[in-house]
Order: sequence, then C-alpha cells, then structure tokens
Amino acid sequence: MRLNEIDTPALLIDVPVMEDNIDRMAAFCRGGQAALRPHIKTHKCPELARRQLAAGAIGLTCAKVGEAEAMVAAGIDADFLIANEVVGPIKTGRLMKLAGQARMTVAVDDAENVAELGAAARRAGVTLGVLVDVDTGMHRCGVSPEAAASLAGVAATTPGLRFRGLMGYEGHAVFLTDRTERERVARSAMTLLLEARDRVLAAGLPVEVVSAAGSGTYDITGRIPGITELEAGSYILMDTRYRSVGLPFGCALTVLATVISRPTSERAVLDVGFKGITPEFGLPEVKRPEGVTVARLSEEHTTLTLEPGVSLRPGDRVELIPSHGCTTINLYERFYAIRDGQVQATWVISGRGKSQ
Amino acid sequence: MRLNEIDTPALLIDVPVMEDNIDRMAAFCRGGQAALRPHIKTHKCPELARRQLAAGAIGLTCAKVGEAEAMVAAGIDADFLIANEVVGPIKTGRLMKLAGQARMTVAVDDAENVAELGAAARRAGVTLGVLVDVDTGMHRCGVSPEAAASLAGVAATTPGLRFRGLMGYEGHAVFLTDRTERERVARSAMTLLLEARDRVLAAGLPVEVVSAAGSGTYDITGRIPGITELEAGSYILMDTRYRSVGLPFGCALTVLATVISRPTSERAVLDVGFKGITPEFGLPEVKRPEGVTVARLSEEHTTLTLEPGVSLRPGDRVELIPSHGCTTINLYERFYAIRDGQVQATWVISGRGKSQ
Repeated sequence: MRLNEIDTPALLIDVPVMEDNIDRMAAFCRGGQAALRPHIKTHKCPELARRQLAAGAIGLTCAKVGEAEAMVAAGIDADFLIANEVVGPIKTGRLMKLAGQARMTVAVDDAENVAELGAAARRAGVTLGVLVDVDTGMHRCGVSPEAAASLAGVAATTPGLRFRGLMGYEGHAVFLTDRTERERVARSAMTLLLEARDRVLAAGLPVEVVSAAGSGTYDITGRIPGITELEAGSYILMDTRYRSVGLPFGCALTVLATVISRPTSERAVLDVGFKGITPEFGLPEVKRPEGVTVARLSEEHTTLTLEPGVSLRPGDRVELIPSHGCTTINLYERFYAIRDGQVQATWVISGRGKSQ
Repeated sequence: MRLNEIDTPALLIDVPVMEDNIDRMAAFCRGGQAALRPHIKTHKCPELARRQLAAGAIGLTCAKVGEAEAMVAAGIDADFLIANEVVGPIKTGRLMKLAGQARMTVAVDDAENVAELGAAARRAGVTLGVLVDVDTGMHRCGVSPEAAASLAGVAATTPGLRFRGLMGYEGHAVFLTDRTERERVARSAMTLLLEARDRVLAAGLPVEVVSAAGSGTYDITGRIPGITELEAGSYILMDTRYRSVGLPFGCALTVLATVISRPTSERAVLDVGFKGITPEFGLPEVKRPEGVTVARLSEEHTTLTLEPGVSLRPGDRVELIPSHGCTTINLYERFYAIRDGQVQATWVISGRGKSQ
C-alpha cells in the first residue's frame, strides 16, 4: 500500500523515528537504577506495547481499566499498573476480572476505596497489587507524604490486596521548558515522594516500587536514587508540546490530511479539524509541504495560510504534527506504519475511544 | 436500568428537554419559508436523526461521508446533504456508493472537483446533487458570489451531476453573543449568498436550494426571504457555548462522571478529562450537585473545587454540561436516554469517531 492509497485524515507513524525513540529510552533505563513501565495511554496500541516490552520494559502503565482491557484482550501478558484510582462496583468488578487474567496493580489514595478494592478482590478470588498515590505537588489525586504510611498500613493489612509501594506523578514539572526549572520542580516533587517512602519504611512495611516520571522528566527523576520505575509514555511518538521541552526524541506521529478547498491564493483548507487533531495544547504544525502554516482549526477543517507560490490543489496531501499526540490518537482506529515512504503495516488502536 | 448502574464517564440525554428542543425548532420551521435540514454532525446518532425527520425535517446535513454512511447503514432513507467538499478518488468513490443507496447532494467550490465528481458519478451510474458553496464572510471554503454563476454553470452541464442550488454557512456569526451584532453579521452574510443566487438565476439556471444557518442564527437567517433550508444542528442537545448565545433551547446533554478522589476538603477529582469532555470552547459546567465548580481539566481527570460543606466522596456521581457538545459526543459509543431519573433507552452514536 502506498501513501496515496490511504484515506484521510489518517495517523502515520514514521517507524524508524519511533524505533529510535524506543531504543533511546530503553538504553537510558538499562544504564540506570530505574526501570521503564511505559504509559500506554498515549498510543493505546497492542503492537506498540509489545515493542516496548521487547525493548526491556518491565510492565505497562495504563490510565484506566479500558486501556488495560484492550491490552489483555490482545493477548499481552504483562505486569500492569493502572496509575489512577478505580472506584465503584462497576469499575472494580472490571478490574478484578482483569486481575484474574494478568498481574494488576492500582493506585489508591483513600481508605474506603482500599476496603472496597479488597472486598472485590476477595469476592473474585484474586490478588490485586496496590500503590499508594502521593500528591507530589501537582494537587490532583493522591495523599500527602504524612498520610502515606497510614494508608499503606491499611492496604498492607487488607486481605485480597498486596501493598507494593508508592507512586507520585510530577505532572506539574513535565512540560516546563526551562531545564533548570524543570529539574528543580521534579526534584522537589521526588523529595516528597521519597519522604512518603521513608515514612512507609519507618512503619515497617517493605517498599518494592516507587513509580514516577513523564517523558519530560524521565532523565531527571530516573537519576534520583530510590525511584524504581518510570511511567513515561509520550516519548515513543512525541508531539509539538513535548518537542518544545527539548527532549532527545523525534516526532514520529503525523496526521495525513487532504486539501479539499483552495479558495484563494493564500488559503487552502484540509479535511481534518477538532474531531481529528486536538487543539488543547495549541495548533498543529505543518510537517510538509514547506511554505504552509496552520491559521486555525474548526470542527472538521484546518485552514492553512500559504506563502506565495505554494501550489497546493484540492486532492493534494499535507502532513500535520499534532500538539497533543495522546488525545489525537484517541480519535483514530489505526496507525499506518510508514517506512521508506511505503505503508509497512496498519496497527489497530484497540484502546482508543474507550471513554470508560 | 437506573442511573447508578451506568458505568462512567457516560453521556446522558434529558429526553424531555431534547423533545422540547426538537418541537421548538420544528414549530419555527413550520411557520416560515425555510425548511429544516438538521446537521447530524452534532449527534451522529440514527435514533436522533429519525426523530428530527419525524418532526418534519426535509433531510439531513452531514459534515463528511462517514456520517452519511452511518445514517444509511442504519436504514435511514433521506435526502442527504454533505455540506462540505468531497475530494479525491477514495472519498468520491465512497460518496458514489452512497449515492446509489440514498439521495445525496454535496458542496463544491472548485471546477476540477466538479469534473472529478461528475466522472465518478458516471462511472458509478448514479446522479449526485451539487450545491455551490459560497464564502459568505467566514473565509474557509467556498467561492465568491462573483464566481458562483460560473461554477454553477459547470456543475449544471456536467453529466452525472444535478445542480440544485447554493449553500453558505455564516459560521462567523453563530456564536456572537450580542443579538444585534449577530443579526448584522448574519444578514450581511446572507446578502452575499443571495447575491450569488441572483447571479446564478441571471445566468439562466434554476435554483431549488439556498441552504444556510447554524443554531445561533436559525431565527435570523430563517426569516430572510430566499433562504430555503436551515442546517442548524446543535439546538437538539445544546452546550454551554451555545447557551451563552441566548437561544430558546435547553441543555439536554450531560456527562455523568464519578468522583475517584477527594484528597482535601476543597478538592475532588472525577474520572473524565480531555478524552471524555472536550475543552476547546472552555471548561465544562457542573450541573449537579450544587456548590461544585470545575477548576481544571487534564487528560483523564476533572479537578473540582468544592464550597465548604460539600460532602462528595469517592464513588459519588457528578453531572457536567460540556462547553462543546459536538466534539464531546464524538468520543462516546452511546447516549443514555434519561426520563424521570431512569434510563429509558441507549442510543448508539454509530457515526462517532469516524475520522474519515
């Protein structure tokens, strides 16, 4: 299959760039004390998860039950972390079903939720791993370092659960473009996470896992003694927002679109908008052709501004780099894997659009 | 099925509010000279399209081929308008297949595209309706009023095509919150569209259709003599952005979410973020409970700020009104139809997530 046989809009992966990203992150983790448990919320694609595991990842991180279900349904047998709280009878029921099929660990930040998870695990006859989620300064979910030992104690003594350690995502650091500031905020966050660990250890509980980091902080957090796992995920495909942070990974992801209108010499319009390339981190960037910039996005259109002499006609193709890969990928059914200008394979995004 | 048996996040429709919206728009169109051809890009749901047709809509408007395919696949036999340019061999091939199953009309703004569509229609042995798309001031797709007659002439003389008239979406007017300004911009846009019509008529071509309007301008554009059809769509379910315009339609759509974390007295966190409620038109609003506002959205979380005394606990439910219904609905597989606090039905959003 050739590029011009792909219906648009479509997601393309530049496979050599992606492979280099995978190798680069794997090499970093091989050289240090922190292992990689990549976050698959960015790609939701079993094929990419398999490649990350083959490159040495010790397991997979998911944002929600639906993502882990997609991976398990594809036959991936890994050590899964759902790096998020799972609450209520419907979701905990789904989680316990998964825990009967693969090793599952979940984040907790509430004693009643710990009790609910333990009861569900016992009913299902499974053992569920738990990490205590620590608020390291992002102020979303998570307990304070002071409260971590108490909750760890509850988890460690709840039948059906296995207390494995702690996690704390420094999401308030990962996008800071100034490296010095990013280091400062990430180190400050990890000081809180390690304080929580020390309190848990002081309470006499073993701590197997201390999990943290995103793609913007992997080489800061990953060098801090005591951090055992990195949850970075976006590094594999990247986007313009993470590129602005100055990471050593290439943008492997583009949206292929078709010009549907060329109303004036300065303007052309593409067949993709908010429903195919998400805007929350800014406008996409034109990868090719040259001389073209994005003026605005609307629901089903991208309006382009053309420099003088650019010859785009209806039917011509344009490649855009998304500002936010994770939410853009969530809108598509498959990736087209491109090598040497040819479609090498299509990879199903089987976890996409699973809002639950 | 009761509300607490729904897994979250989930889309709810308040059915009586939606029915009132459908009735109100149908009543407006019954009383005037412009008929309703509602845009189904907002809901992408055959059940809702059927209700709009049953209430008197003369056909359906779609943004892209994939939406029309979803409606035809569900057995809806209507007069379809794809209010957008369809370009290239793959998409035109899909369009001609549809034109063999239902009455299809498409927008055009380019003579080469007209030739491509005509050739594809002849190969497929179908007749495709066309409307000349006129730029009425939004400056996206569309020809100038001066160029409309020439393109209409090409379309009218291309075998395989049937020239039906013109369309011109005043998208730059629909969200203007000042009614006087909205009227001024919409009337100015329709002056351009009717100028284009007059040029086509002067060239000796019959004009059956002059199609325009969104939910923000239906009662302005719909009262202008010469406008034959309204493409309004969002009125059926609404959102906070269209509510801010001051329309006589109620917000029938909410996202049901679950509290997954209550880390502090002032903060709670929900199990929905950018991947389940889109942010391009602003943060969602909390419908219930009272005393709760949205502080921020991230990829899988909504962080809430709670007034003193609000008792939300993990597992409790919260209903959010999206700022943009169209892109939020695109993320879900189904609506839950709610009447008297009970789930009356589930309606499949069969056109959702069809990026092509």
